[in-house]
Amino acid sequence: MDRIPILKMGHFLLVTIQVDLYDRLALSLENDLINMVSQVDAKGVLIDISAVSIVDSFMGRILGNIASMTKIMDAETVVVGMQPAVAITLVELGLTLSGVHTALNVEKGMELLQKRIGKDQTGEEEDYDSND
Amino acid sequence: MDRIPILKMGHFLLVTIQVDLYDRLALSLENDLINMVSQVDAKGVLIDISAVSIVDSFMGRILGNIASMTKIMDAETVVVGMQPAVAITLVELGLTLSGVHTALNVEKGMELLQKRIGKDQTGEEEDYDSND
Repeated sequence: MDRIPILKMGHFLLVTIQVDLYDRLALSLENDLINMVSQVDAKGVLIDISAVSIVDSFMGRILGNIASMTKIMDAETVVVGMQPAVAITLVELGLTLSGVHTALNVEKGMELLQKRIGKDQTGEEEDYDSND
Repeated sequence: MDRIPILKMGHFLLVTIQVDLYDRLALSLENDLINMVSQVDAKGVLIDISAVSIVDSFMGRILGNIASMTKIMDAETVVVGMQPAVAITLVELGLTLSGVHTALNVEKGMELLQKRIGKDQTGEEEDYDSND
């Protein structure tokens, strides 16, 4: 396995992380995602981490990086399916995933993305669900 | 990693296979999928195998099993994202994935599922895209 598949669904991209993100895999994921956002004109990226039970500062940084990169490309990133234990660990590590939006599951994540895209188009600025 | 995450998207379930399906993992995937189909009243199952580059008869059998099981539960299974080399290998192995529908990518798979569900409701029987 040298690549994590990125699924295109309408204007959104969906990535499911099921394996440990070691350095090279994480870099190629960042690369692939940014290229795909540009290629397919994606408005949002959903990252499902429901299979991730162990998290470290590296994973936290990668998620933050992806969110920052896609933001520059005018797409929003939502991390979905986080296990409670992972949330606890992230906060204990001092990683608050700044700039990353979160939702309980893929469906809620899609709703959030759709709302945010609509909001961007109308120019509102209320940021009720972000960790910015 | 002892479980493959199953994502619920409306009436469909989405599974991305990124790791080698050894015996126990395959059995737990079958189990989880069937339980989830029943729990959320799913009408279709999408299995993305775009990350699978090596296929053997075991994998072929598992896909066939899942399709047969979900069929009994009144849900359709569509395998999406198959790499050309995998299709070649499957046919050379004599596995034609009978009963499994296929589509080029997740979007086309969803369209196919939506068409098939609509068709089931109107009672038509034309089976233009199946390998039955």
